[in-house]
Amino acid sequence: MESKRWCFQGNQDLQKASAITIGGVLAMLRGNLNKDDPRPLIPLGHGDPSCFPSFRTAAAAVDAIVTALQSHEYNSYAPIVGVLPARRAIADHLNRELPYKLSPDDVYLTVGCRQAIEISLAALNRPGANILLPRPGFPTYEAYAASKNLEVRHFDLLPDKDWEVDLDGIEALADENTVAMVIINPGNPCGNVFSYHHLKKVADTARKLGILVIADEVYDHLTFGSTPFVPMGVFGSIVPVLTLGAISKRWLVPGWRLGWIVTTDPNGILNQTGVVKSITSILNISQYPATFIQGAVPRIIENTKEDFFTKIIGMLREAADICCNTIDEIPCISCPKKPEGGMFVVVKLNLTMMEGINDDVDFCMKLANEENVLVLPGAAVGMKNYVRITFACELSSLEDGLTRIKAFCKRHIKINQ
Amino acid sequence: MESKRWCFQGNQDLQKASAITIGGVLAMLRGNLNKDDPRPLIPLGHGDPSCFPSFRTAAAAVDAIVTALQSHEYNSYAPIVGVLPARRAIADHLNRELPYKLSPDDVYLTVGCRQAIEISLAALNRPGANILLPRPGFPTYEAYAASKNLEVRHFDLLPDKDWEVDLDGIEALADENTVAMVIINPGNPCGNVFSYHHLKKVADTARKLGILVIADEVYDHLTFGSTPFVPMGVFGSIVPVLTLGAISKRWLVPGWRLGWIVTTDPNGILNQTGVVKSITSILNISQYPATFIQGAVPRIIENTKEDFFTKIIGMLREAADICCNTIDEIPCISCPKKPEGGMFVVVKLNLTMMEGINDDVDFCMKLANEENVLVLPGAAVGMKNYVRITFACELSSLEDGLTRIKAFCKRHIKINQ
Repeated sequence: MESKRWCFQGNQDLQKASAITIGGVLAMLRGNLNKDDPRPLIPLGHGDPSCFPSFRTAAAAVDAIVTALQSHEYNSYAPIVGVLPARRAIADHLNRELPYKLSPDDVYLTVGCRQAIEISLAALNRPGANILLPRPGFPTYEAYAASKNLEVRHFDLLPDKDWEVDLDGIEALADENTVAMVIINPGNPCGNVFSYHHLKKVADTARKLGILVIADEVYDHLTFGSTPFVPMGVFGSIVPVLTLGAISKRWLVPGWRLGWIVTTDPNGILNQTGVVKSITSILNISQYPATFIQGAVPRIIENTKEDFFTKIIGMLREAADICCNTIDEIPCISCPKKPEGGMFVVVKLNLTMMEGINDDVDFCMKLANEENVLVLPGAAVGMKNYVRITFACELSSLEDGLTRIKAFCKRHIKINQ
Repeated sequence: MESKRWCFQGNQDLQKASAITIGGVLAMLRGNLNKDDPRPLIPLGHGDPSCFPSFRTAAAAVDAIVTALQSHEYNSYAPIVGVLPARRAIADHLNRELPYKLSPDDVYLTVGCRQAIEISLAALNRPGANILLPRPGFPTYEAYAASKNLEVRHFDLLPDKDWEVDLDGIEALADENTVAMVIINPGNPCGNVFSYHHLKKVADTARKLGILVIADEVYDHLTFGSTPFVPMGVFGSIVPVLTLGAISKRWLVPGWRLGWIVTTDPNGILNQTGVVKSITSILNISQYPATFIQGAVPRIIENTKEDFFTKIIGMLREAADICCNTIDEIPCISCPKKPEGGMFVVVKLNLTMMEGINDDVDFCMKLANEENVLVLPGAAVGMKNYVRITFACELSSLEDGLTRIKAFCKRHIKINQ
């Protein structure tokens, strides 16, 4: 057949945005694994312990899905905002901790928290707008901002202050084109939990600047330190809040792809400013979670017993302890702050003590190759020469992984320092 | 609390794109229903018969989901392209009718066919590009094109030629910035089925123009006339084809949100032109179907017995017959062509014979209000003064709906013509 000139070509615009996802970085690391290593792969790279038997979801959650599916009531298209019983159940669930009442109309179901992020950024975007993102943070925000040409400005989380938001930095960064700031609480990647007092200051600062707060609470209630989880929505009267969440982490089912955006805004400012209208417009041409999974949400929330959560939190606490205690014994790496929530700890590399390791990416690539262990380079979350380690996994695997990291560090330590 | 000036506002760009969805139009019609009408609502507006008992999905499909869910193997994040067993099962499924072999790598899982549409358009977009869409057609294409600033040019489907593509029109429309043309086969809204001979001509025309073909086959194999379904991929050696599909229609589960894009392209042109790379880049920052639904795909395909499909097709044939025969008896409306596939028939309104009905939207709004029957105005699918009627519903409901449409037309017929 003759050679043919075709008029089409791939859209290259989105390739840059897509390059900075955690999945992309982990795929690169997996490409560097040594296939001849007989030891099992220890995946400490992402926040998904659901492959480990100890982190199996609640039986009640599985039963809820089966019930919804077998009812044959949820095989049809769903309303673009989500089915009403699910919206009501999520509103009621969040209302237990708020000083005012959300209505089901405040809740929009999304395909995991990831789509909640995408829709929030899209709803606020306008030419020239910028958004304030935490550093370190979660690169999906950067990826979606890049795909929408929304300018990103980074504020710091302060390692010496329990990873609190650098509020002075926020005021210096914001201008009249700043539309929102993002906080992730409990923290990813830092495992910190913001206090009531600090969240109040965040709200006051955002109000002063006239920007809204996007509160990513996908790790809500996964806390095991001295600081209790406080939803940002508690301060919704001070500043409008978009609360993002999902069943992914708390119920250990990230693959079920059920998340939400909630307008936590008792003064109706998100309505007045057209943000609500924008969200529904975007949902009109977006994807939504499978209808029967939506239909299962009320039973998932109602029927999951408290002891399921208590057990998971106990395991996370123990795993975080083991992780930090072991890291303390490993040369060349250190943990600035013991995690109080979430599934991760951020670990600082002391590269001057190491031989033949150029930076965090090099550390992770060589660790993958030499020890069959995956951890995430800090560069992927905005913290060069740190790594993010997931402690949410089977304890035996975690211990095995940390032992291998220790061996790796010892092997790469500089002699004659 | 003092009045506060906020820096953010809703993004209004997407509101236009979002206005032209079928869901939006049906929502408008529902707003015009008469709540005091004691008769049941007859929904003949969209292609989703799953709410009717006769159109219940196969037990094997439900069992496949339950098995995948209860295995606890599919609670984790999925690869962005989809899980391998599902990709392989879909490739094998399509291979039965192709003259060459697709590999699992040719298959990308999507959140229903709708996301397959979105990703296809995004992957081909570039500044100045245009795409050729059928008129009448499926407005989701227009909505996604608008949201991406991709120029749309419409070619006609010819009512006098069994709704075949106006190939001369295609050649007149295309230029060096045309990237693709879309065909929907079996047809939505026309219920036509393209012959092998006509599809070959489509392929030759596209090749001549250097554009690819997006073949929307979401209604594949739902044919009940004299023309058998032929996948466009059969002509993949002539012109590269993106085949879009889903389990939504054939298995009667649009709410399960499981679709696919398949690169039906034995010459590897989509690879060479960067389209494949673009698709994966987009998937990297997109949503995907719930992992356990993906995991169920092999069993859904393998275990669904042929008699399930035979029964559904028999019901659709009977419903299409009843629909067209009844329409023949109704004054003021006529059916240009009896459907041979899909779930819809396009009906022409003879407005000069009617009193007090301005156009198709007016017809549908008044029908909703006076008869509690929903049908889709042709304006929503690019055919002013036509309406699209779904015949895929319980026969008793269809007959009831058609009786009400007949009463409506008789009531609105002009006296003394």
